[in-house]
Amino acid sequence: MSKGWKFRKGKSGDLNIIPLGGLSEIGLNCTVFEYKGSIIVIDMGLMFPDDSMLGVDYVIPDLDYLVKNSSKVKAIFITHGHEDHTGAIPYLLQKINAPIYGTCLTIGLIKRKLQEFKDIISPKLITVKPMEKTKIDDFVVEPIRVTHSILDSVSYAVGTPAGTVIVTGDFKIDNSPIGQRMNLQRFSMYGDEGVDVLLSDSTNALHSGYTPSEKLVGVAFKDIFPKIKGRIIGSTFASNINRIQQFADAAIANDRKVCITGRSMLNNVEIASELKYINIPKANRIDVKYLDQAKDNSVAIITTGSQGEPLSVLSRIANDEHKTIKAKNGDTVIISSKAIPGNERSVASVVNMLYKKGVHVIYEANAFVHVSGHGSAEELKMMMSLVRPRYLMPVHGEYRMRAGLAELGIHVGIAKENIIMVDNGDIVTLKHDKSMSITGKVKTGREFISGRRLANIDINVIKQRNKLAQNGIIIIRITPTANLGSVFAVSKAVGFISDNLFVDMKKDIEERSVDKYLKLLSEKGAGNAIATRISKDVARYIAKKSGVSPHVEVILPQIEI
Amino acid sequence: MSKGWKFRKGKSGDLNIIPLGGLSEIGLNCTVFEYKGSIIVIDMGLMFPDDSMLGVDYVIPDLDYLVKNSSKVKAIFITHGHEDHTGAIPYLLQKINAPIYGTCLTIGLIKRKLQEFKDIISPKLITVKPMEKTKIDDFVVEPIRVTHSILDSVSYAVGTPAGTVIVTGDFKIDNSPIGQRMNLQRFSMYGDEGVDVLLSDSTNALHSGYTPSEKLVGVAFKDIFPKIKGRIIGSTFASNINRIQQFADAAIANDRKVCITGRSMLNNVEIASELKYINIPKANRIDVKYLDQAKDNSVAIITTGSQGEPLSVLSRIANDEHKTIKAKNGDTVIISSKAIPGNERSVASVVNMLYKKGVHVIYEANAFVHVSGHGSAEELKMMMSLVRPRYLMPVHGEYRMRAGLAELGIHVGIAKENIIMVDNGDIVTLKHDKSMSITGKVKTGREFISGRRLANIDINVIKQRNKLAQNGIIIIRITPTANLGSVFAVSKAVGFISDNLFVDMKKDIEERSVDKYLKLLSEKGAGNAIATRISKDVARYIAKKSGVSPHVEVILPQIEI
Repeated sequence: MSKGWKFRKGKSGDLNIIPLGGLSEIGLNCTVFEYKGSIIVIDMGLMFPDDSMLGVDYVIPDLDYLVKNSSKVKAIFITHGHEDHTGAIPYLLQKINAPIYGTCLTIGLIKRKLQEFKDIISPKLITVKPMEKTKIDDFVVEPIRVTHSILDSVSYAVGTPAGTVIVTGDFKIDNSPIGQRMNLQRFSMYGDEGVDVLLSDSTNALHSGYTPSEKLVGVAFKDIFPKIKGRIIGSTFASNINRIQQFADAAIANDRKVCITGRSMLNNVEIASELKYINIPKANRIDVKYLDQAKDNSVAIITTGSQGEPLSVLSRIANDEHKTIKAKNGDTVIISSKAIPGNERSVASVVNMLYKKGVHVIYEANAFVHVSGHGSAEELKMMMSLVRPRYLMPVHGEYRMRAGLAELGIHVGIAKENIIMVDNGDIVTLKHDKSMSITGKVKTGREFISGRRLANIDINVIKQRNKLAQNGIIIIRITPTANLGSVFAVSKAVGFISDNLFVDMKKDIEERSVDKYLKLLSEKGAGNAIATRISKDVARYIAKKSGVSPHVEVILPQIEI
Repeated sequence: MSKGWKFRKGKSGDLNIIPLGGLSEIGLNCTVFEYKGSIIVIDMGLMFPDDSMLGVDYVIPDLDYLVKNSSKVKAIFITHGHEDHTGAIPYLLQKINAPIYGTCLTIGLIKRKLQEFKDIISPKLITVKPMEKTKIDDFVVEPIRVTHSILDSVSYAVGTPAGTVIVTGDFKIDNSPIGQRMNLQRFSMYGDEGVDVLLSDSTNALHSGYTPSEKLVGVAFKDIFPKIKGRIIGSTFASNINRIQQFADAAIANDRKVCITGRSMLNNVEIASELKYINIPKANRIDVKYLDQAKDNSVAIITTGSQGEPLSVLSRIANDEHKTIKAKNGDTVIISSKAIPGNERSVASVVNMLYKKGVHVIYEANAFVHVSGHGSAEELKMMMSLVRPRYLMPVHGEYRMRAGLAELGIHVGIAKENIIMVDNGDIVTLKHDKSMSITGKVKTGREFISGRRLANIDINVIKQRNKLAQNGIIIIRITPTANLGSVFAVSKAVGFISDNLFVDMKKDIEERSVDKYLKLLSEKGAGNAIATRISKDVARYIAKKSGVSPHVEVILPQIEI
């Protein structure tokens, strides 16, 4: 147990650890710690939707458990400023008013993000420092510096009378980082004192060996830059402040001025500059509007779009849609990132468009210009060796990666029965006798965000959208004739087949609908059943005729209601 | 020029080479050769749609040029049996009746595929053999054996009075293949005689070194199989007959019976067995229905689904949806393939589901159980060194890959100005004086297939589907009241937001529509403009209220027409 705080005497209560997300996916990281009526949470992340989640911009964990227990929620601690650890904060704060704790840069980034949400007024944002403990009811929480692809990343040691838990957050063990060093000693000290549970990053558990140091990317830049005669256009994650620093350093060393462009890149550099996490002297910068006046070999642009995002600066340059920066023969683009699974095609498309314009592209396929922010097998084993936890709970990552970490845990000497594979929502209870087990389950799930709000959509809506997306919709309206003696039908297709080809089918569909309507009317009373039955009949006809099955919506004649 | 055929004396005409697909994408391979009023085509491939092509199963090249010139089209030559080289054949044959030429296995696979199309009656399928020339008008066409991930793959040497062209098709240079060897000598001989143009595979031009031999996968199987105690479930492309053979050989050597399951896997093995390209003795096979009675360590299942395709056997096993094969603790799954870009998430999802069931998964992330069928840089350079073409035309691959091949061509000694980067539709003319240039352009594009037919959709339909997919549709019908004195509106949403949340907005939408309708009616005459204006007004309201923009379809009162 951590020093410096005395816990109340007497038999301790049970500590419940409840992951609300992050265990069946990359993203949605969010873990609840509950002890004697108090809750603290570590991380509050979002996830980017997969292709089947049509019309969804972000996914967040179902926060129902926290909303229902809002009076118990005392603090949200954030390990670092990436969106898969911070992105759900605005949506939580729209529902409950909990203070957010994090290190300096993390809080700076969160503060800027929350400014976009007009309905969140004066959120409580509290900056914590590594080695400084925060006491909240029976919890004592200490941030421990780690290295990762964003500065100011920390693990948290959570002390309670029931035991001590360490949550690594995302980390690599970079022994030659840019700036802040990892506090290996502190992990070791906690290991000496005894750690009951380690919740460890599993992302790169399937990668053997060590993840290369961030500094090697700087070495690559220093090797590449002098060879380039024309403009240099670099692209990386806007949050990777160290990478941006290294790019800028290489540019300046080669007598190039640095042009930072793209909204999120500018925002992040501005925040990081204010907080002194990055240093690109004003004299060495050039505004995007003066680029045209500068010689090609005197500038280096750094911007967003390393994932091929359609609206990013790099995509717009590649597709000739950028207002001021036009790609040209002689330019060199450096994509300093790895395509996240699902983005491979977008990145490839950007690269192809650039090649077509005579641009030389340096990226993962042909150069070493990126390193991962997650530790590989040897680093994960090192963390476990330092902390020597009683129990290991692999978190952060798909099941196969977490299973990979479990295997590494066994290699390191953790007893197999002390490695616990849990699902989102499982209540894992650490008892005063140091036994640990799954004792229950809370409701979990995913909520969808569209723009800046909850999308108010459920799985049925997603199903309807998928059906519309496949084959469109046909709307058939049945209307009484002017003399009210009979009916006629008018149909319209949206997203079904090309208009000039729909003509043939349209007449058949309308005649068929009228026939069916009159037939059903003579059989039974009017009602929704009639619309459904016409719809099914027409759908069958269309499927036979065209081979595809659009949604068929039938609108019956209706009197005022 | 190839020996054995005498061309007519006198000044030769021009040879036009027109790629109809395959130059801006992976797939759609199709190149037209036109000489003095005769056309032959090499390859007739399809492409799998990307995520934006909603409701599309396959994409084929726009075949308009061939349909318009159908009387000139004398032959379609196919390099090998993969769908990106054969898949458009049925849709071409639905429009024109051209003979299809290919090697034995290639024709076998095409024949089977065409049986699924009832409207294609007695297609002309002609089997050709390597080293045997086919003369068609002024063309002399010779297949040359290459190694690739499907047996019976060939390049074609196309001789005309204007000059000789070699089309490599897909190839690697595997010096220890399973079965057929590549005929390096023949390429060398053509090189001696003089080749004017080489159209070369570019797929792996960005991979340095050599692609490993297929035989190494067999070595890996032989190493892995004896260590496995439970069932083995293997998965690869159904067309990779050599891989299936190696899997079966390893199984049999370890006293396991081979269970082949999955429709396309069974079809291909049946065809390949009939044609003697694979040999799995009946005594060593077991039918899927007897699996339950066999000991786990006495069977090895080989099936489809290596790309995570949702309906494949492996996906169904992973998701507990397979009728007879239930995954269980102790099973080992071997995924013997690489995820094609765009399929990474599906494959990962299958792996995760299997891990959760306690299945051990051996795949590209943790073992060497797959090799590419495409040659890497050194093999591509070797091909150019053998053939020593006057002109190089990089084909098969995205632009960056083709640009990569162009660079390799320069290394090999081909003059930069003799390397020609063309787009789909470019008419490349080889003149009698051996000059070559782009002399025109034919219409090209893509057509969409849904099920087994042309989908009859164009880019507008795809746009509408994308809009529907994002936010659904709201249908508003405006109807006269029973006494015809006024109107009322009824709205319905499909794929917009959850029903219980739509209720609030529904009333507003309907009132607003009626108000707008009455106002517009008093301003102007009725017509489509009114519907459009109501639609725009309501769309604005919905966007403001919900943050999203569904398609809004307004149906006005209408009298019989």
